[in-house]
Amino acid sequence: MKSYVLSILVKNHSGVLRRVSGLFSRRGYNIESLSVGETEDASISRITVVVSGDDYIVEQITKQVSKLVEVINIERLKNSESVFRELALIRIKTTNEMRSEIIEMINIFRARVVDVSENSLIAEVTGDNSKVEAFIKAVETYGILELVRTGLTAIKRGSAIDAEKILD
Amino acid sequence: MKSYVLSILVKNHSGVLRRVSGLFSRRGYNIESLSVGETEDASISRITVVVSGDDYIVEQITKQVSKLVEVINIERLKNSESVFRELALIRIKTTNEMRSEIIEMINIFRARVVDVSENSLIAEVTGDNSKVEAFIKAVETYGILELVRTGLTAIKRGSAIDAEKILD
Repeated sequence: MKSYVLSILVKNHSGVLRRVSGLFSRRGYNIESLSVGETEDASISRITVVVSGDDYIVEQITKQVSKLVEVINIERLKNSESVFRELALIRIKTTNEMRSEIIEMINIFRARVVDVSENSLIAEVTGDNSKVEAFIKAVETYGILELVRTGLTAIKRGSAIDAEKILD
Repeated sequence: MKSYVLSILVKNHSGVLRRVSGLFSRRGYNIESLSVGETEDASISRITVVVSGDDYIVEQITKQVSKLVEVINIERLKNSESVFRELALIRIKTTNEMRSEIIEMINIFRARVVDVSENSLIAEVTGDNSKVEAFIKAVETYGILELVRTGLTAIKRGSAIDAEKILD
C-alpha cells in the first residue's frame, strides 16, 4: 500500500470537514493524517489528507470528494513536484547529564528546543515525513514522553500550480 | 468570542474523525483549525481543534466529545502552560530585484526558504498563531500567491502533563 497526498480546497462551511472525512470513513479508507487550515482567502480552507491505498481507490475517492458542493478543487500531489512538511513537538526525557547530548542531536536535525524543565525538554522539528520519522528514531533512545504531530501539509513547487490536476 | 484549543486523544478507529467533527458541526460550533497526527503510540492519534466560542459552549462540546467511545481524553490547553505551534508554507511573488529583500524578511522571522523559482519562492514558517499571522502580514506587500497551513498542534510545558484536565 502506497501513501497518497490529496490537497482539497473547500469553502469554509460548517460541516464540510465532517462530510469529507465521512466519505473516507464510510468506504473504510485509512486516513494517515489530516490537516485543515486557512488559505490566503479566509473563506476558503485547504484540507490535506494522507491516505493509504492503491491507484484505483484514490481515483474513486477523488471523484467522490469532488462531487461535494463545498469542494472547489482536489488534486493529488506528487513527491517530485511538491514540498511536503509537517511539524512535530516531542517531549524528551532528560537529566542534567544528558541534556547537552540531546541538544546536540536536536541541532544536527536543525530542530529547535522550545521548552526546558528539570526532567524533560520539548523539541520542535519540521520536515517531510521521513525527516520527522528519522528524528523521532534518533531521540527514542533517550525516552519520548509525549509526541504530537500536525499532520502533513503540502504545496506545489515552482510555478506549476495548475499542472497535473486529477480533475478537469 | 475567544479561541479555545482542545487536545483530544483518540483510538485510531476508522470514522473517529467523522464522529468528532460531526459533533462540532451539528451544533454549529466553528472550527478554526484542526490537525490529526499520530502520537508515540501508533494506535492512538491526537486531534487538536481550535474552536471559537465562550466558556459554556466549550464546556458542552467537551462533555459531548468525551462520551464518544474512541475518545481516551480531552483537555483544554491554556496559553500560559502550553506550547502552541503551526506550520505555514507561503508562495511569495518575487523578481530577481526583490528576492534578497524578501529573503532578509524571511530571516528576520527565522523562517526558511524551501523552494526558489524564477517568479516565486516558498517560505516555511513555524510558530504560534500570532507569529505566523505577523509573518503573513509582513510578506503580504510582495504578493502571496498561495498559502497552506497545518492548523495548530499543542503540547503542555514542563512536566505538568496531567494538571488541569477538563475531565476527571
